[in-house]
Amino acid sequence: MRFTSETSSDGIREQLFTLDEIPGVLWTPHGATGARPLVLMGHGGGRHKKDPGIVARSSRLVAECGYAVAAVDVPGHGDRPKDEEFHRIATANQARVDAGEDPAPLIAAFQALVARRTVLEWRAVLDALQHLGHVGAGPVGYWGVSLGCGLGVPFVAAEPRVRAAVLGLGGASASAEAAARITVPVEFLVQWDDERVPRAESLALFDALGSAEKTLHANPGEHAELPAFELDSTVRFFTRHLGCPREPSR
Amino acid sequence: MRFTSETSSDGIREQLFTLDEIPGVLWTPHGATGARPLVLMGHGGGRHKKDPGIVARSSRLVAECGYAVAAVDVPGHGDRPKDEEFHRIATANQARVDAGEDPAPLIAAFQALVARRTVLEWRAVLDALQHLGHVGAGPVGYWGVSLGCGLGVPFVAAEPRVRAAVLGLGGASASAEAAARITVPVEFLVQWDDERVPRAESLALFDALGSAEKTLHANPGEHAELPAFELDSTVRFFTRHLGCPREPSR
Repeated sequence: MRFTSETSSDGIREQLFTLDEIPGVLWTPHGATGARPLVLMGHGGGRHKKDPGIVARSSRLVAECGYAVAAVDVPGHGDRPKDEEFHRIATANQARVDAGEDPAPLIAAFQALVARRTVLEWRAVLDALQHLGHVGAGPVGYWGVSLGCGLGVPFVAAEPRVRAAVLGLGGASASAEAAARITVPVEFLVQWDDERVPRAESLALFDALGSAEKTLHANPGEHAELPAFELDSTVRFFTRHLGCPREPSR
Repeated sequence: MRFTSETSSDGIREQLFTLDEIPGVLWTPHGATGARPLVLMGHGGGRHKKDPGIVARSSRLVAECGYAVAAVDVPGHGDRPKDEEFHRIATANQARVDAGEDPAPLIAAFQALVARRTVLEWRAVLDALQHLGHVGAGPVGYWGVSLGCGLGVPFVAAEPRVRAAVLGLGGASASAEAAARITVPVEFLVQWDDERVPRAESLALFDALGSAEKTLHANPGEHAELPAFELDSTVRFFTRHLGCPREPSR
């Protein structure tokens, strides 16, 4: 893991890094030392590790709870080069959708393919981050919706260090089998008028989760219209399950 | 409104009252004066105004937020005499269910009948409570699930003083028409494995709510197994929409 830049503002230290060829970002409280909860965030399709939504969520978790938060670019996204194989398949899929084919199974197959790579990448990132003195081997959480759910479900299912996850805006056809292997607490976000994920698909993915504690939060609005109060809920969900080194403010 | 007893413990003042023939209870912070948010709570079927769940929720809202909370017995429940008409219909319905009839439409029709009375009763109670110096004409909320939802939906739809409501464990067949007239924020609770309300009925009632801001919280478990963390969420939901005279502790 090689750090390429470091800045600090508003009490939050931001370190950009690369691990092998994976570009990532780590946020921690300024001056932090010792182990703390770590939340990995998976970005959405066409987005990147420093998507405004990820930055906003990370700031809250770092500033209010003293967490470490990290995000990496998915292959073909952000600072990563175009991935020829993924690009070829995505282009072919788009043509099939334009020709009238149902996108859901195509997206599902594509995400399953990408996830075979990202599960390995994210485990390697987690290994490296937990060796840092200001992150350490504390409890781990995962946050990801949309593509971050499609890739997150197989990751959370495979990675025993993850103790709680916020997932959502994703459907059962993408990952129901992996979902059944998840046993940690999950907060699952559904947009009631999602134009990209059919409501029944969303509910079926929630249903498929193997977790004894899982809670579905559904709100009106389209795919990208998650209400702001769900961020408050995310903060409370993680503090409930990962603990809170720093007492959160309201 | 006639007060019949008053006690105080743990900083909470409890006053039992009757209004006409309606027995009720009012909880306020000990020594409170002046207007404050008021939450009315509707109890479940076969329960009463001092059901342990109602007492637990009220204690949180009074102690942490400085609210007034009130609950009254539904006709035929708690300290009220048997209501001959309702008892006759309920007995007949039970016989029909025992004979194999689908209970949902029978429950729906019965709750609609009871609601025609409780809407009037609860408005009268609200009028009287708002004349008290330690309650006043602050913002009003409603909390009710199961029977408290079946009776609460018509009440919230009819009563413009109610600014936010927690509802749930109820189905669309009971109250979809009234639900469409509700426009205030609603937090709607669904038990994913509810043995009494079919899942599709629950989701349809949430769908029917006319509110621009409505949030569905679904959790695994049967009808009576609401998880404890939903009480935290209830407290935050009301403080978000009714304000909080007293800064809540965590």
